[in-house]
Parts: sequence; structure tokens; C-alpha cells
Amino acid sequence: MPDRTLPFRSEDALWQELTRHWPVCQGNVVVGVGDDCAVLRGDSPAHHVLFKTDIVVQDAHFTAATPPRLVGRKALCRAVSDIAAMGGRPGAALVTLGLPRPGGGDSALPSPSSAASAKFFSANYLRAVYQGLKDAAAECGVSLAGGETSRARQFFLNIALLGETRGYTPVLRSTARPGDLIWVTGRLGNTQKRRHLTFTPRLAEGQFLAAESFATAMMDISDGLGRDLPRLARASRLGCSLHYATIPRNRGADLRAAMSDGEDFELLFTTAIDRADELRRRWHFPCSITCIGQMSAKHTGRRAWSPPENWIDGYDHLKQP
Amino acid sequence: MPDRTLPFRSEDALWQELTRHWPVCQGNVVVGVGDDCAVLRGDSPAHHVLFKTDIVVQDAHFTAATPPRLVGRKALCRAVSDIAAMGGRPGAALVTLGLPRPGGGDSALPSPSSAASAKFFSANYLRAVYQGLKDAAAECGVSLAGGETSRARQFFLNIALLGETRGYTPVLRSTARPGDLIWVTGRLGNTQKRRHLTFTPRLAEGQFLAAESFATAMMDISDGLGRDLPRLARASRLGCSLHYATIPRNRGADLRAAMSDGEDFELLFTTAIDRADELRRRWHFPCSITCIGQMSAKHTGRRAWSPPENWIDGYDHLKQP
Repeated sequence: MPDRTLPFRSEDALWQELTRHWPVCQGNVVVGVGDDCAVLRGDSPAHHVLFKTDIVVQDAHFTAATPPRLVGRKALCRAVSDIAAMGGRPGAALVTLGLPRPGGGDSALPSPSSAASAKFFSANYLRAVYQGLKDAAAECGVSLAGGETSRARQFFLNIALLGETRGYTPVLRSTARPGDLIWVTGRLGNTQKRRHLTFTPRLAEGQFLAAESFATAMMDISDGLGRDLPRLARASRLGCSLHYATIPRNRGADLRAAMSDGEDFELLFTTAIDRADELRRRWHFPCSITCIGQMSAKHTGRRAWSPPENWIDGYDHLKQP
Repeated sequence: MPDRTLPFRSEDALWQELTRHWPVCQGNVVVGVGDDCAVLRGDSPAHHVLFKTDIVVQDAHFTAATPPRLVGRKALCRAVSDIAAMGGRPGAALVTLGLPRPGGGDSALPSPSSAASAKFFSANYLRAVYQGLKDAAAECGVSLAGGETSRARQFFLNIALLGETRGYTPVLRSTARPGDLIWVTGRLGNTQKRRHLTFTPRLAEGQFLAAESFATAMMDISDGLGRDLPRLARASRLGCSLHYATIPRNRGADLRAAMSDGEDFELLFTTAIDRADELRRRWHFPCSITCIGQMSAKHTGRRAWSPPENWIDGYDHLKQP
């Protein structure tokens, strides 16, 4: 397909183009496009509402072979991870379900194979998806408050999720400072087989980092460190450097996998350099934290930091293979 | 397709089955599954938060021939109409965009035709969709606060929308009383050609009906009066009767069309019988209101009211043709 139908280099470029003229900070919106969640003013200066929407689509985020409970779990936990990435506590969620018609009898359109479609739309399949949703909601403190269904050509689940912070402000991507250290929770890479379905959102960890003012900037790693760290750097209008050797890797992951597999759903955050010892001392969660690099002032004369030539890139949903 | 893959008579039956074991009124959720919006407790007893998600899907809610500005407009206005149906004021919205790949090169799956796919994914198409979204948002007082994209096999737009009521409680479907009169705003039927794309959500009307305590129950008509009125009756555990002759119809709509076309997005509401004259006197909006029937106590011994034999049914997304 020629490029004139897709003049966007990446998902980020597409969003930038489409939302360029949006009035993003109207009304009670404090942070709009460009962070993990939208941030809205709450009922007092110490209260902020977080608002997030996230979708999993058949064959993009899971396959017909994925256990349906894990499809439901993943859909919810992805959205919860974005609330965690701002240091928030999740609240109510709504579910939108796209349901292919059994047999795919949509005359105007190509039909999905009957077998696959029937599987996605069977009662037991849907019940298991919802059980996964419900279990993950209970685990994360989310209230499932309703939703709706639509006929669709492929099975999908969209989650709209509210969250909040009280007593401290949500941590953004855009507030890292030159010299801040760069950290990740847990280990990265080799996520495709099962980890992308079974991960636990870093809720308590994110809340601790935000409430204790350790994190100067934070996000979750959904598209790989190689893609998400440049997003944090650009949002903060800074440069950054990584010490590749220090990046904590999951078993079976080489450096490339740790940088680019994506769907790690670990927290990526920055802290002031003089709080590193205190953070290590007070860290009391089962998952590890590792310092992997440092933010730097961006080079003068450049509009935004770009990864160096040898940078290992992450995952882009819209990029042509 | 045999019924064993779809043991649900309708969209309503599917939702009932899937959400039967949900803890729907956990946390700050006041009303969960089963109304136009979820209702959450606000920052004071006089404040309620409304939360809604709604999707438009290519070939289900619009076609390749639909002007893209109207696709964006419809997506937003559908969700706003549900806020209006509870008497609320809309706030921030998030957009989830499903984007087919140009050329449809998804090897494991049937490809949509290149021409259609390219159209849906062209830069100008997307810009026009977003312009429609933005214009409708400005018109309805909605703040577009962000969103995300996913690759998908068909183009879709999901809207997650927040709203609120202050100083009065949201009007539910479930609070009609025996003897209450049944009303609709505007005219019904013959919506398919253009009206389903260009309607104006009845925001001011809904707020007036709620704030002045006229409406004892309310919802918007999305699947046709013939399907939505039974929903209101069942939610209120009442029966109802319609005077078919009084139903206000759009030009070109016969009674069947007025009952079953769907996507009218007019308000359907009930009032106490002794406030009818006051309502008529104080109604100051350009659109009309018409009394079309009356709620009745349900027949004893029946679990829920069912439409009579000769009832003209509305639209069900999931029903087999």
C-alpha cells in the first residue's frame, strides 16, 4: 500500500496529528492527550480523577488459542497498569464487548471462518472472559459498573476505567529533570508467551512512588523500554542515556528482547539522584527496582531528543512490518 | 448456525447472563448494569457522577459511504444522549480508535477489500472523523481528553464519557410508578437515512425534566420505542400500555417505523399524572413533547411485564435475522 494512505510514521505521530487542534485542557481536564491517563480536577485541590480507556483486539492482543479467562484478565489489567503508572487507585470500570456473529454471515463483508467465530461467541467462552474480568477486578479493587455490546467483525474488549489520587498529585511523564536517575520495576522481555496475559499491575508500588514523592516522572512499559523511554524523555523535553548492561531481563530474554518485546507492564520512573539510597532502603515490595540510566539536558537546537543510531526500538501498533 | 453457540435470545439476555454475578454496586457505584449510564457517588450527597461507554462500528452503525464528519459526530452524540437521558451534564471524553491496516495485509485473517480499507485509514478520512468529534464536543460541552488507537479488522470509534448531576439525582429507568404518563420528545421513525447521523442529544430537555422533578423515569430511545419502552417497564417492575395513534412520527414513518427503526435518540420518560398540565405549560424547548401512554401495575404472578402479542418490536444488535 503506498504511503499516501498512511502518512504517519508511527502511532505517536498519528495521535499528534489527529489531536493537534484539540482543546485538551478545557473544563476540568488538567492533562489530556499524551500521558498514561487523562487527569481531571477532583473535588478538592488534593484530589485528582484519572480516566483511561484501553482495548484488546482478537489477533492483535490475543489469539483464538488464548485461554478466555486470561483475555478478560489482560483487558482489565492493562488499563489498571496505566492507573498504577500515575500512582493512582482504580475505581469503576465499564466494558465494551465487540461480538462477531456466529458463522460470520455478514453479506457485505468477508466472513471470518465459522469455527473461529463460533468459538469466540460461544456462551462458555464469554462466561470465561467475564470470569477473568471479575477476578482481576476483585484483585485490583475495581468495581465493574456495566458496559455494552456491539456486533463486530472481530472479538474485542474495551475497558473504560476511572481512578484517583488523594493527598498527592498524579505522576506524569513530562516532569523528569536533568540528572534524574532512571529506574524500572521487575524484569523486562520475553513477555509474549504468557507474561503479557498474567502480569500483575504495579498498583501498590506506583502509589508508594507517588505518595512518597520518589517518582519525578513515571509511566508503564507497554510498547517496550526502547519505545517508552523516548516517550518519557520527549514529554519531559530531556535527553537520556541507558546502561544496557544493567537492564534487568527475564529468563530467556536478551537485551533486544528486554528493549523491544513490549507488554512488560513494569513501571518506568525517574527519581532525584540524592534520593536513590533512601528509595533502595525503603523499598518493601516483592518485585525489584533497578537503576538503568540517567536523564540529561537535551542537546541545544534540537526540538526533541531522538534515540541514537544504535538504539533498540520497541513496538508500534501501526508500523508497517 | 445452531443455537448452542448463542444461547441468548437478545442483547438484553446476553448482558443479564454475563453480568449476573457481578458485584455491581461495590465501592462508589450506585447504579451499575441496566441503565443508560453507570451512576457513581460524587463529592457530596447532591453530586452524582455518570459514566458511559458507547461504540460505533463500521458496517453496523455507519458505512463506507457515510461522510466521515458525521461518523465522528454520531459516535460522540450517542454517548451524550445517554447522559441526557439521566438529566446529566457531560464532561470529559476519551476516544478509542480501531484502525484497519491499509491493504488489509493480515495474513491469518480474511482481508477487507483494499479500497474500503484504504479509505477508512486515509489521513483525510481520519481528520474529518476527528473534526466531527471536535465540533460535536464543542456543541455539547464535552472536553476531549485523549484516547488510544489499536489495529483492528474494521474501523470503529469507542467513546468513554463522564457526566454529572448537581443539586438533583440522575433519573433512572427503574423508578416509574403505576399510573404515570408516558411521554416522548420530538418525533420517531424513519431515522436510517440521515437522522441517525445528525440528531442533537436532548441535553437541555433532559436536565429540565430531571432538575424540575418532572421525570419519574427516563431513558433515550436507541433501539426503537418497541424495544426500549419494555426495558423501562421491566426495570420499573410495571406494565404499560401505548396509544399507538398518538405516537408522533417523522415524515415518511408509519407506525411500524416509529416503533422499530431505532436510533431516534429522543427522550422517553414518565411523569406523575397530576403534573401533566404544568409540564405542558412550562415546556419551553423547540422540540415537542407528546403523551403516548400510561404505566400500569404488572399482572400478578408474572415475573416481568412482557409486550402483548401484537406489540411492534424494536431493534436488537445481536438477534439473528
